[in-house]
Amino acid sequence: MFEVEIKYKVSSLADLRKVVSGIANPLGVSEEEDHYFNHPCRDFAATDEAVRIRLHGDGEVIITYKGPRLGSVGKTRVEINIKVDGFNNAVDFLRRLGFSEVASIRKRREIYTVDKYTIYLDDAGDLGSFVEVETMVSSEQLTDAMAKDILRFSEEKLGLSPSQIEPRTYLELAMENRR
Amino acid sequence: MFEVEIKYKVSSLADLRKVVSGIANPLGVSEEEDHYFNHPCRDFAATDEAVRIRLHGDGEVIITYKGPRLGSVGKTRVEINIKVDGFNNAVDFLRRLGFSEVASIRKRREIYTVDKYTIYLDDAGDLGSFVEVETMVSSEQLTDAMAKDILRFSEEKLGLSPSQIEPRTYLELAMENRR
Repeated sequence: MFEVEIKYKVSSLADLRKVVSGIANPLGVSEEEDHYFNHPCRDFAATDEAVRIRLHGDGEVIITYKGPRLGSVGKTRVEINIKVDGFNNAVDFLRRLGFSEVASIRKRREIYTVDKYTIYLDDAGDLGSFVEVETMVSSEQLTDAMAKDILRFSEEKLGLSPSQIEPRTYLELAMENRR
Repeated sequence: MFEVEIKYKVSSLADLRKVVSGIANPLGVSEEEDHYFNHPCRDFAATDEAVRIRLHGDGEVIITYKGPRLGSVGKTRVEINIKVDGFNNAVDFLRRLGFSEVASIRKRREIYTVDKYTIYLDDAGDLGSFVEVETMVSSEQLTDAMAKDILRFSEEKLGLSPSQIEPRTYLELAMENRR
């Protein structure tokens, strides 16, 4: 499966929350602590890949590999998610193999769903507030068409303008903030 | 935790099964399919490490990192085990990161426990039949003393001679069989 998503930077989540609550179903709130790792012999900043261990507020731990961006619109990547039974073991496993932690990001994420879209209202602390609109497609050929659907939906239903698009990942934003 | 284990090569499991059944408690039988991977930029054969995905007959999947052998007697290693929710995803994750599968080994393993020891009667197909006696210790300083305990226990209680010790791992045996 391929994840297609577009992220918008917003000045406040309050207005968006009103709009989103009116049209979408709330799925809950998730506190997420994301730990990003670099590869022992590949520079993920150059290859545009990522390895992340996500610790959810409820204790669930997910290891994720994200492949390089595909397609011309939005952000489409191969994504592999593995649910694991312990955060410390997962960190220790990657460290022993030479992976090094490069950034950690905490965010509070409100999750909604409407039609084929998942909408995230993200408070990412120092990095700011963001709205992500995401969906999954079964083949790479479908990603550009789906990204255009997301653009249209976001503009018409959520009042988000293409000028608000934030093309950088949270990891990239965190790395740039550090400089 | 550090795993301390000694492995003995035996010509048949039948005689050992009688002895072991008389003194130890059976914990069950496990069918295991072990897939070993090499690191993208380290030669695990040289560094004496291993990464393994084990698929149990009941569907459980465990990813394991094994560190280099420590101590002078037996085989002591750092071992990190992570239970994951899917075999194919785990394989795909490692492959995307550049790990390559080097061998797969199927074995049928009867598991017993007595005192502080776990005893495995392993039918490893072409590789032969083996008895492993294993225990865990909390610090590296305790490993050599514990290995001597295992040697004594194996000789006195199981009738296994130090001359039967097989120092090679299943992975090393599989790699040598291939040549």
